Amino acid sequence: MSDLLETAFASVDAELDRSVESLFALVRVPSVSSDPAYAGDCRDAATMLSHMLEGLGFSASVRETAGHPCVIAHLPSKKAGVPKVLFYGHYDVQPAEPFETWQSPPFDPVRVERDGATSLVGRGMADDKGQMWTFFQACQALLRTTGELPVDLTVLVEGEEEAGSASLEQFLRENRDELACDVAFVCDSSMWDEVTPAITCSLKGLLHERVTLIGPNQDLHSGLYGGVATNPLRVMARVLSALHDADGKVAIPGFYDGVREVAPTVLGRWRELEFSAWDVLSGVGLSHSAGEAGRTVLEQLWARPAIDINGINGGNAGPGERSVLPSVATARLSIRLVDGQDPQRIRALFREFISRQLPEDCSVSFAGSEGYPAIAVPEENKFLQLAVGALSDEWGRQPVLQGTGGAIPAVRFMKDILGVDSVMVGFGLSGDAIHAPNENYGLERLRKGARSWVRILEACGRVEG
Amino acid sequence: MSDLLETAFASVDAELDRSVESLFALVRVPSVSSDPAYAGDCRDAATMLSHMLEGLGFSASVRETAGHPCVIAHLPSKKAGVPKVLFYGHYDVQPAEPFETWQSPPFDPVRVERDGATSLVGRGMADDKGQMWTFFQACQALLRTTGELPVDLTVLVEGEEEAGSASLEQFLRENRDELACDVAFVCDSSMWDEVTPAITCSLKGLLHERVTLIGPNQDLHSGLYGGVATNPLRVMARVLSALHDADGKVAIPGFYDGVREVAPTVLGRWRELEFSAWDVLSGVGLSHSAGEAGRTVLEQLWARPAIDINGINGGNAGPGERSVLPSVATARLSIRLVDGQDPQRIRALFREFISRQLPEDCSVSFAGSEGYPAIAVPEENKFLQLAVGALSDEWGRQPVLQGTGGAIPAVRFMKDILGVDSVMVGFGLSGDAIHAPNENYGLERLRKGARSWVRILEACGRVEG
Repeated sequence: MSDLLETAFASVDAELDRSVESLFALVRVPSVSSDPAYAGDCRDAATMLSHMLEGLGFSASVRETAGHPCVIAHLPSKKAGVPKVLFYGHYDVQPAEPFETWQSPPFDPVRVERDGATSLVGRGMADDKGQMWTFFQACQALLRTTGELPVDLTVLVEGEEEAGSASLEQFLRENRDELACDVAFVCDSSMWDEVTPAITCSLKGLLHERVTLIGPNQDLHSGLYGGVATNPLRVMARVLSALHDADGKVAIPGFYDGVREVAPTVLGRWRELEFSAWDVLSGVGLSHSAGEAGRTVLEQLWARPAIDINGINGGNAGPGERSVLPSVATARLSIRLVDGQDPQRIRALFREFISRQLPEDCSVSFAGSEGYPAIAVPEENKFLQLAVGALSDEWGRQPVLQGTGGAIPAVRFMKDILGVDSVMVGFGLSGDAIHAPNENYGLERLRKGARSWVRILEACGRVEG
Repeated sequence: MSDLLETAFASVDAELDRSVESLFALVRVPSVSSDPAYAGDCRDAATMLSHMLEGLGFSASVRETAGHPCVIAHLPSKKAGVPKVLFYGHYDVQPAEPFETWQSPPFDPVRVERDGATSLVGRGMADDKGQMWTFFQACQALLRTTGELPVDLTVLVEGEEEAGSASLEQFLRENRDELACDVAFVCDSSMWDEVTPAITCSLKGLLHERVTLIGPNQDLHSGLYGGVATNPLRVMARVLSALHDADGKVAIPGFYDGVREVAPTVLGRWRELEFSAWDVLSGVGLSHSAGEAGRTVLEQLWARPAIDINGINGGNAGPGERSVLPSVATARLSIRLVDGQDPQRIRALFREFISRQLPEDCSVSFAGSEGYPAIAVPEENKFLQLAVGALSDEWGRQPVLQGTGGAIPAVRFMKDILGVDSVMVGFGLSGDAIHAPNENYGLERLRKGARSWVRILEACGRVEG
């Protein structure tokens, strides 16, 4: 190992406790973006971050958006011709309610010793304040070691990720030139398991659709009209059940057009990981896959589109029984898209599929947000390959190149507006309880995360921008 | 026409305004049975009725039940060997909220002149205070004409019909001997149309079933688990859509066992009425029947069992979109039974049908009230035949022998406990707005209803008990 890395790693260790203290200071700010009552706290968090980045040597500023502010910070390398790197994170957090389910107050962070390891507990500790800290601590260590960074670095931290990144798209458009870069690094994702790092290489696209069926022009008494009047709930059950065939495949004609089969070599790699995928299912009380027959769980999760019913509502919701034959039934669905599927085309196919099954006495209306397509980061991206090597060196194992059905809006906006791919490296684990009570992050992962970024940045400094 | 009838009809006309005044006095008492706030008013209504029946010459008393009290009144005929007749009605009414949708206060009854006819407006005016009044006015007219009634009459008025007649079964058991009779007359149903009387001869049975499906042991993110984790809403749509085949027939094996085909002569009679059945559908914005192919609407409504979904609930109910894959989905159903179907057997078949369609990762629980079978009054019942003749004479048209999918618990209890059939003669119309704002009853129907009962009671006096 190079002297540079040795020295930087020693700095990570030496500064670890001080780093935790500054992380705790940020966690104490309840920067809940979805609740207007915390708008002042979001601004405070942005200001604190800006000051902290200034302290590291960046030129940082709080920047206005239509919503909560962003922080932008620059620190150019002293070397010419090095890559321009954009690091993205978010300072906002999920609401912490109900507070009484927390073992310690969510915005009063603590260290907890568990099974011989130290866990840091507080809202935002993992998502995304602690994950961001792995990167900032790496920057600090490199700066202490060499007095400079190996790349031209810009940091972008937004304050609305947990509320859909509503202002980010416009903000990126307005600051396109300032944010221009060769690659974006994002630290808001998970490891494969406790000992295996991962890089997230594909994000599914998403469409939300709301289907409202109307039968009779008023709620009816099922005793007086039952079995004769068109019941929109019965129609809804029929049209929704027609969405999948007996093999779990989506039955909408044309739905899979343009969806490419995963390369056999990649499928082979995924097959070796399949055992862990089953752990994910058994963790939520399931023992079977409800997906397409003949495909592995990982393929279904990462590479196959899916339609899920998010909610059905209509008629009597109890608690007592009521013989109502309702006038209206509503279903909400999410359609997860993969590379090759155009959201607008899929929406049209979906609506056509539902509409043509309806009986004459049933009208339909559709509503849905705009939707967005899937994103795939090509495996041959050179920064991704550098990260693969760096993570392998740090963890002693090849990182898993994983997909996810979840969305990170920033990744899409950076692709569309800045024209760059995102290399998504994160150190989260399912036990971190993000979006849940007692959110936590392991101290050892903070340390090894920082070391991982030291390696990645150092490697980036050795290629051309 | 006999002198007796002439004289009695003249008495009906002479007393009509006074009768309306006493009906208004009862309507002013807000005897809402489902709201405990009105418990005192229910008792006041029972007391007032008891006094009114005493005034007519009955020996009447308010009688305690587990809930709101009943009124029982007796008036034996002076003749021996005449039939024992039980008249059933209810003094309780539906809630009147929202009050602001009434054109006049619901418990401050008024006469309204409309298109040259007089309408009486107030909560309970039709259901069931005014309908009862048709019978009581007939009793008064007969008593003024002959000084006696042609039958041994017992009046039973309950105060919980709008709340499911919860105390009536026990009350009938406790007073079985006192209420023994040859026939029960009930005035709580409708005419066929404005000019055609009707007798309701069949009431469907009813089962309520609640199906709860559980998939994963917690709500999941549809981005992370979509298409792979068993979604109980998707399973629910599938099992509910399987309840009916493409011809609208219930697909549960054995469901129709024991259901008899309607006799061709009866079907022929119904076919002549089919036009009016379509009016019922078009009145609620429908133009097609959703029932079994190849059967008339009236046959579906009156003689065929039906399953309806009363409600489905699970997952996101909005207003925003949320990518949830829910743990739990619930559906509520009502199953309307016809003669020949045993509720417990049908319940078992239903549960078996649902259960065997479930995937391994989906558990089910069922809940339901006890349910009750259908009731059919044989057309050959001699009192029913007397009513047919009397109504034909009064209205100049044969009464329609109709069915209904609705239930009148008292009819079932009187059959089970007292062992008598109910002859259900009523003068309601769909425009009466029962259970709705501006409930009303036509003055002319009060008059012709009273005349109809004069004829029916007079005819009963001419047969043996």
